[in-house]
This record gives sequence, structure tokens and C-alpha cells, in this order.
Amino acid sequence: MRPQSQPPGRRGERTPDRSPPDRGRIDHTTSVQPATHPGDIWLYGRHTVTAALANPQRRIRRLVALPETAAEGKRLAAAAAARLLGAASLEILPRESFEALLPAGAVHQGLALAAVPLPALALEDVIAHGAAAPGAAQRPQIVVLLDQVSDPHNVGAVLRSAAAFGALAVIVPERGAPPVTGVLAKAASGALEHVPIVRVVNLARAIDQLKGAGFWCVGLDEAAADALPALGLGGRIALVLGAEGEGMRRLTRERCDLVARLPTSGTLAALNVSNAAAIALYELNRSAALGMADGDRRPS
Amino acid sequence: MRPQSQPPGRRGERTPDRSPPDRGRIDHTTSVQPATHPGDIWLYGRHTVTAALANPQRRIRRLVALPETAAEGKRLAAAAAARLLGAASLEILPRESFEALLPAGAVHQGLALAAVPLPALALEDVIAHGAAAPGAAQRPQIVVLLDQVSDPHNVGAVLRSAAAFGALAVIVPERGAPPVTGVLAKAASGALEHVPIVRVVNLARAIDQLKGAGFWCVGLDEAAADALPALGLGGRIALVLGAEGEGMRRLTRERCDLVARLPTSGTLAALNVSNAAAIALYELNRSAALGMADGDRRPS
Repeated sequence: MRPQSQPPGRRGERTPDRSPPDRGRIDHTTSVQPATHPGDIWLYGRHTVTAALANPQRRIRRLVALPETAAEGKRLAAAAAARLLGAASLEILPRESFEALLPAGAVHQGLALAAVPLPALALEDVIAHGAAAPGAAQRPQIVVLLDQVSDPHNVGAVLRSAAAFGALAVIVPERGAPPVTGVLAKAASGALEHVPIVRVVNLARAIDQLKGAGFWCVGLDEAAADALPALGLGGRIALVLGAEGEGMRRLTRERCDLVARLPTSGTLAALNVSNAAAIALYELNRSAALGMADGDRRPS
Repeated sequence: MRPQSQPPGRRGERTPDRSPPDRGRIDHTTSVQPATHPGDIWLYGRHTVTAALANPQRRIRRLVALPETAAEGKRLAAAAAARLLGAASLEILPRESFEALLPAGAVHQGLALAAVPLPALALEDVIAHGAAAPGAAQRPQIVVLLDQVSDPHNVGAVLRSAAAFGALAVIVPERGAPPVTGVLAKAASGALEHVPIVRVVNLARAIDQLKGAGFWCVGLDEAAADALPALGLGGRIALVLGAEGEGMRRLTRERCDLVARLPTSGTLAALNVSNAAAIALYELNRSAALGMADGDRRPS
């Protein structure tokens, strides 16, 4: 983040998620930039920015574009005016100033915004929300748990597949999971606005809580005896994936109701964790999705 | 690559893939490093290096490790001595010299090697090899065609899934596809040694050639009417994927026998191209893999 040109006010204090903005009321046409707050995250890339602006839960502190993407930025800003905080409106910045706001090498496509993090969700909220969701009885309700997956690209890619297959949430431990950054959000390609990331203190305890709420907890393990599609799982499912190489930690694995492998057929059997998650989500939704797509072929 | 401390010899000339080594006979314990040849590629990361050293087709010009990974490097070098060219043997380098050989930020895990590119394979070779492969009659023979997928991470990740599901090759156009670099190889996590990348002048012509050899050419398109699993494809299949966003080019799409979508169910339907490829490869192998895994449950 660039140095603040405004007095920092309550610097170092995490901005409460729902407080009204108390700063940033600066005309963007002057050389003084609106400040960002500690805790704000920079999101970038066309899909990511568009999805953030379309999310009614999302509050935007700054929205920046390059001269060559100004028209697109203006259109997006107009459609999302209600979610722009204070006097925030589109800033057109020269490339150098624009890129100074973002990590080096960020593939930004000329659009970026500084956003307030989404309100944190508890596991109970996810469980309650899933049961009340429309169509909850017709298709599996899935949460994905990631054990020690530390690469933000992988977590973002899992979030993207979770959105594509209608999963309720991605659950990660407070320690050992990457923070929500622009890198993670870019890999998620907009899915950060659709699927909550839930941080829990203890993953094993979260599994117990999910089991108590009627979820079948199934861990993916390439050495497992059973293939996932042979299990015929439906209803509420918690899919647990470990880090590449190490897999799930022992304590996590022991809490699972079942372990299963994906049936691979090649010489090199190990899949990337985000590809494994995508395939497992596809498999668990396969019958229901085919049934819905083709009319009345829903499986019993 | 570091500047060569040897006279460059036939500098700028591409080393023929099967010529005997004529340089590099320098004791690695001196400060003079063996030269690499133009066209050599640096591969790095534990999986990638281990797989390259295990590939009988692969010829290695240099093998480097950090002091902390020297033991692992020595073990690998001993097992692969026959594929080390000339006097090449393990070099232990301080971190700074080691990292100067690789792209900035490379996740190298303390192991890297400079290798001669694998011999180029023609589409005809892949077609002939596939028909002769053991088990060719029992499971689908799949090639993956990538139309304008330019990100080396994505091409590498597709290669990895292709290896996991026993695909014959990944076919890319000469223009518009990334070269084989360490970045691509790292994303492939060893699969570069197992699944050939075939470069063709014209992708539409390659599709015609595959059709002539009995391959069903199916393009993935999220707007297609039919879902891939509903098509019940088997035998020889050419799976065609386009770039994210744009999809296949019109000329590519028109050459396909069929187009199909993956049945997604969420709010954000677009999958990452490597996740889409992984799911499609899984689906096309699903029946056969389940049949093989579970004994006699092979579908008719």
C-alpha cells in the first residue's frame, strides 16, 4: 500500500466491518489520494473487480483504472455507486502510480480496487445457511476443508471450483492457511464474492461440528482403498483435502468418517490439490447436475 | 543463464538432440562452471528434477544443489549417472550462485538441472504409439488440444492432469502456446517427462488428421447443449479446450465433431482451463478407471 497522504487517524486499528467511513472524502481529481484503512485489501483483474463491485456485501474504498481502461472503470463505478464508500469514485492513474498500489507482477488488466474485507462467517452460520438454501434438498450440500494448503494460488483456485459447483464454503485453519490477498482473489477469479472462506481455530474440532450437523466427512487420499465415485455419497458432505505431498495431517484424517481416492489411471498419479478438489466437487455433484440439466433423470 | 566461462564454441547453434557431448568436461570442484548449450532448459523443484533424472530419454548437462540439499542431490546423481552428459556431476553451489541460474522467485527446493530438450514428437508418432500401447483397447485413448492457452502454469497443470489420467499427448499450436520452460515444467510437477507436448503448425489441420485416425474430436464449451458425461464417449478421443474467456477459436470449434459442456451447478460457472481439463479427463476415464480399480465392473 502506498504511504498515506492523510493523517492516519486510528492507524493500526482494524476497521470494524460495518462502521461508516470517516475518511477518504477527497476529490480524486486533486493529487492527494484517498487513504486506505489498515486491513483493506487490494483486488485486481477484470473478473475479480467486476465480481467485487457486484457483491452487495462488499464495501469499496478506492477504485482505480488506467487511462486505457477508464471507460470500463466508469461503467463499473456507475453500476456500483451504492457500494463506493464516502466520496470514493473512479481514479484514473498513470501506469506507474497504478502499479505501485499492487504487488509486483500483478496481472491487473488495468482495474483494481481497495476493499473492506467481507464480514467473517462462523461455521455455524454456514451450516444454518446451507440447510435453508433453495434447492438444498435436491443436491448435495458440500463444504471443502483444506488442511495445511498454504499456496494462495491453490486456495483461490479451490474457491473458484467451489463456486462453480455450488459449495457452501471453504474452511481453513487459522494457522497454516494464507490470508485473503489480491493473489488469492485473482486465482479465485471472482469466486471470493460468492463462496465464504471460514477460518477455524481447530480443523479437527470443525470436522466434529460438521459431523454433528449431519455432514459425512470424507478425506481424499490417493492411497485409500475406495474410489470416491464408488461410495455414492449424497446429502451433506465435508470434503477434506491435505497439502500436496504430505496430504492430510494424521489428526485430521482420523476424524474423517471415510477416506477415498480419485481413480487416476496414468503413470504419475498425484494431482494438483486444486485439480483434485475440482474433480471431487464435480463427482459429488455429477448425478444431481446431470439430473437437473437433463430434466427428470435425477438419481434416487 | 549465467555467462559462459568457456569459449562458446558453436554459440547460437541449436544442439542436435542426439549428438554426443563435446563440452562440459570440467571438474566441478574448480571455480569454472560447465557451459550450458543454447536451447538447454533449466528445470527445478524436487518432483521435476527427480522425474527428469528418471527419464531414460532425458540428457542432463548440469545438476546443481544447495549445500543443504547436497545429500539428496548426490543420491539422485548416482542413480542417474548414465544420463549425465560428459563429465557432468553434481555441483554444490552457494544459494546466490544457484539462484542466479533460475528465474527470479523460482520455487526450486534446492535442486535444479540444465537439460537438453526432449526430442520433438510428430502427431503421427503419437497416433501410432497410442494404438500400440498396452491396454489401448480397454481404456480411452485421449489427446488434449489446447487452443491459444498461453499461460505456462496452465499448460503445465494440464500436462500434469494428462499424466494422471494416462493421456497420450498434449497438442498445442506452434504460435500462441508457451515454450517449454522451467515454469511450465514446475507446474507439470514431473509430467513433462511422461506426456509429450506436440507442437503443430495448424491446429485445425491436426484435428482433421486426428479425425482421420479415428479420434472423436470434442470441444469443451460452457454454452454447449450437451453435457460431456451424457455423450458416453469412449475409444479414441481428442479433447479440445480454448483459452479462458475467449474459448476455442471459430475455426477450431467448427472442426470438432461435437461440443460439450461440463455440468456445473454454481453461481459462477466458468472453470479455470486446467481444472476443466482435469474434470474432462476424469470423466472420460471414469468408467474405465472404476472398472479397472474394482475388478470386473468394467462397463460395456
